[in-house]
Amino acid sequence: MTDRLYLYDTTLRDGQQTQGVQFSTAEKRAIALMLDGLGIDYIEGGWPGANPTDSAFFEDAPRTRATMAAFGMTKRAGRSAANDDVLAAVLNAGTPAVCLVGKTHDYHVRTALRIGLDENIENIAASIAHVVASGREAIFDAEHYFDGHAADPDYARACLQAAAEAGARWIVLCDTNGGTLPGRIGEIVADAVACGIPGARLGIHTHDDTGMAVAGALAAVEAGARQVQGTLNGLGERCGNANLVSLIPTLALKPPYAGQLETGVSAEGLASLTRVSRRLDEILNRVPRNNAAYVGASAFAHKAGLHASAIARDPATYEHIDPGLVGNTRVVPMSNQAGQSNLRARLADMGIEVAPGDPRLGRILDEVKAREDRGYSYDTAQASFELVAREALGQGPRFFEVKRYRVTVERRKNKRNRSVSLSEAVVVVKIGDQKFLSVSESMDAQGSDRGPVNALAKALAKDLGPYGAAIADMRLVDFKVRITQGGTEAQTRVIIDSEDGQGRRWSTVGVSANIVDASFEALLDAVNWKLLRDAAAP
Amino acid sequence: MTDRLYLYDTTLRDGQQTQGVQFSTAEKRAIALMLDGLGIDYIEGGWPGANPTDSAFFEDAPRTRATMAAFGMTKRAGRSAANDDVLAAVLNAGTPAVCLVGKTHDYHVRTALRIGLDENIENIAASIAHVVASGREAIFDAEHYFDGHAADPDYARACLQAAAEAGARWIVLCDTNGGTLPGRIGEIVADAVACGIPGARLGIHTHDDTGMAVAGALAAVEAGARQVQGTLNGLGERCGNANLVSLIPTLALKPPYAGQLETGVSAEGLASLTRVSRRLDEILNRVPRNNAAYVGASAFAHKAGLHASAIARDPATYEHIDPGLVGNTRVVPMSNQAGQSNLRARLADMGIEVAPGDPRLGRILDEVKAREDRGYSYDTAQASFELVAREALGQGPRFFEVKRYRVTVERRKNKRNRSVSLSEAVVVVKIGDQKFLSVSESMDAQGSDRGPVNALAKALAKDLGPYGAAIADMRLVDFKVRITQGGTEAQTRVIIDSEDGQGRRWSTVGVSANIVDASFEALLDAVNWKLLRDAAAP
Repeated sequence: MTDRLYLYDTTLRDGQQTQGVQFSTAEKRAIALMLDGLGIDYIEGGWPGANPTDSAFFEDAPRTRATMAAFGMTKRAGRSAANDDVLAAVLNAGTPAVCLVGKTHDYHVRTALRIGLDENIENIAASIAHVVASGREAIFDAEHYFDGHAADPDYARACLQAAAEAGARWIVLCDTNGGTLPGRIGEIVADAVACGIPGARLGIHTHDDTGMAVAGALAAVEAGARQVQGTLNGLGERCGNANLVSLIPTLALKPPYAGQLETGVSAEGLASLTRVSRRLDEILNRVPRNNAAYVGASAFAHKAGLHASAIARDPATYEHIDPGLVGNTRVVPMSNQAGQSNLRARLADMGIEVAPGDPRLGRILDEVKAREDRGYSYDTAQASFELVAREALGQGPRFFEVKRYRVTVERRKNKRNRSVSLSEAVVVVKIGDQKFLSVSESMDAQGSDRGPVNALAKALAKDLGPYGAAIADMRLVDFKVRITQGGTEAQTRVIIDSEDGQGRRWSTVGVSANIVDASFEALLDAVNWKLLRDAAAP
Repeated sequence: MTDRLYLYDTTLRDGQQTQGVQFSTAEKRAIALMLDGLGIDYIEGGWPGANPTDSAFFEDAPRTRATMAAFGMTKRAGRSAANDDVLAAVLNAGTPAVCLVGKTHDYHVRTALRIGLDENIENIAASIAHVVASGREAIFDAEHYFDGHAADPDYARACLQAAAEAGARWIVLCDTNGGTLPGRIGEIVADAVACGIPGARLGIHTHDDTGMAVAGALAAVEAGARQVQGTLNGLGERCGNANLVSLIPTLALKPPYAGQLETGVSAEGLASLTRVSRRLDEILNRVPRNNAAYVGASAFAHKAGLHASAIARDPATYEHIDPGLVGNTRVVPMSNQAGQSNLRARLADMGIEVAPGDPRLGRILDEVKAREDRGYSYDTAQASFELVAREALGQGPRFFEVKRYRVTVERRKNKRNRSVSLSEAVVVVKIGDQKFLSVSESMDAQGSDRGPVNALAKALAKDLGPYGAAIADMRLVDFKVRITQGGTEAQTRVIIDSEDGQGRRWSTVGVSANIVDASFEALLDAVNWKLLRDAAAP
């Protein structure tokens, strides 16, 4: 018999507490859809009423198979649940589930809420009952439960009982400070079960302050809890929450969980995990952790010579799971057939047919590998990848040659003694025997300085002779910058997204220690790809 | 009665298997001395004879209080231990301890070594006996022990017995693939104890492939193991080894370990942990993980407004330990979720006392909010926040004034007809009545162009008159760029992390549509904050 285990994601709420993270509404939507595709059961979208982004998200929440939950807190003292405007805002979001956090630690009730212990219990009961009465699924987050249990176990348990009796579908034990170790978490979950709250109604919410949030969540599951809260990539306040990206494969693939517990994540969902993890980092413009469990780029990399040769004989010798199960890939210092067949499929997508076993396939892989070592990334920069591949196949475009460029950024006082900045770029290109010199400033129509990359883009586009018409409908729509380690020194990777009048959108990449030079390289690729697509005669 | 628990560091050996990590001999020396200062018991320096760096390290190994260990493998079949040249190179390093890895998984003995099962046991026994006979402390790393135990427990146990009987001081159970979960690790360690190997001779070596290396090591300790192997910052092959930086505070501060187990790490050692962790990243030129347990810059950061107001009343409400115990500090970041209590706590940390209700608090919040709307972010850029706050309080520093700057980026053919890029910056500052003009190029010592921001930073630092000495030990350690929507047009946000010789690390922010100008703004804040901290007379 397998038990159902429910996964509850709080990336959009607790994950937003990560230092440096501030989601836009559009990003929240994109992440919610990603979570839904993965097979998460509950998506906590935020706290309606707490800030404009969260409110806007719920006003137009994406349709998901997963149950959408709004987060809030139990009603305040001195008013009824129906008359608490903070709670009303949460219910007004209209989500099928509502999660309310409440205090269970006597010390916090006294010092933070400054109300009586019984009053807090009444607030919990009345708030949960109000959620249930409004026809929603009620979830109770028992804040500081483990510390509360240590301080006054009877009071902590009474808070859980109140929520359970008021009809909460889930009672979630939260280790809010993140300081409780897995063994203790297991004991206290078992204690809740022993006190009459069935594991099928218990959830666990852990933090990574000792580096053991995942182990703590699993200890709770072993003690009977059947809901696990966590976030993608372990986002969250301080050291983060339990990382669902680490938890999901362990639950799906490892004893004693595999085969005993069922989640909503299918084999296809599991195989999308690496992509989901990296896409979140891309949205946040964070560098993915190479050593992340299961999904890191190094998670199946075999550096030691002894390991690599054993891997060649039998991957199981040094791999705890097949990397393909989580959508990751083995990294070994040797070329492999799978790489070549992927490459052929990718080339075919670009309209380039290459026979299996063609030695040029190996050359393209080598070139891409060498460039990735220098900091390039071709996951998103498909247009630059196509140019690299065509070059290796002897089909590289030769539309024009940049002889030189120069861009100046200045900040100085203007005539009215205001400090202003301005950029100016000169680009010199050669087409056939003809030389074209162009100069542009970085001012936009409003008189604002748009910076050196803008000035370079305008100068490059200003006079490309016979190609001018072909690039006239092209514009730069996004620009991403990331510092990477290429070799021993920090390198800057710039990814530029371009668009044209035909609705095409393409991405190119440039890498240099010099951010302006990296941007120029990506710009050049963008122009060359556009000319290639429009079949301009070189 | 307290038990002694021994910490065994393998940063210099297994840590070297991290993708992208290659220590120099000088770096190995520096790290060994750091480990020794921390109070680690054993330092595994490398594999003498396996590569020139490791050999050079042992030829002139630093004098340490910690026991230095050389790593190698059990003798090969078909020769005596005394006649195995690989083993001889290990012993010739002359270290007081020698750690030999040997196989305990029958499958590996057959497929990798391709020898008989008994022969492998003889090799283990003979090798360990040879180390003991040469007067060294012998340590046996039982490779793939957990998988071996699952496949053929009797054979795996027999390998341990052979090492124990041959006189190994320590028998270390290695989860080489990193796939064994903590519960199973605890069971198998208990099994080894039950088979007659006392916990006082058992060690544990875990990997982080499921994100639970630390939990696995602790499960082994609870089952009786009294040596823990790990690395600083969890360096190591694939997902890394057990992170000693996370383990040490848990062992020292948390039940059931604190007071029950004694390690060589003193309170002073513990308080140096944050510095040690960041220094290692500095040596490796890696960006420290903000969310690292205990030592991360965000580990004691309180972003949520509710948490921040409770923290102001009593830090214990949302902190599982006092951050000072591990040399870390509390951070109450500014964000649009923050209220006045958050702000007052933050100001107090900067040494600025403002009474509750002071109208200037509202002015600071308004200014921060207005800047966040333009794209600034003060979650991480604490130093810039302090400058904004001091300005609003009428305490803004006035060390120098930048009159103007100009930076040029060029790409052109050099004398050898190679296309090269170069940046040059001119900065003009005024201090009192004096004007200082400085010019710098972006070339590093290797002749590579490091770009316009580097040129600007160098020009700015080149001549700051009376402040030159105060900023001499300052360096830029990280640079992050994000495109944000500030108002209607895309803005570039640049965050710069700086460090100084006193181990201080601070972050500053600049925002502009012009990436170079945004960088310059962040640079200026970095310099001003440093001058403020060093109490330079304005």
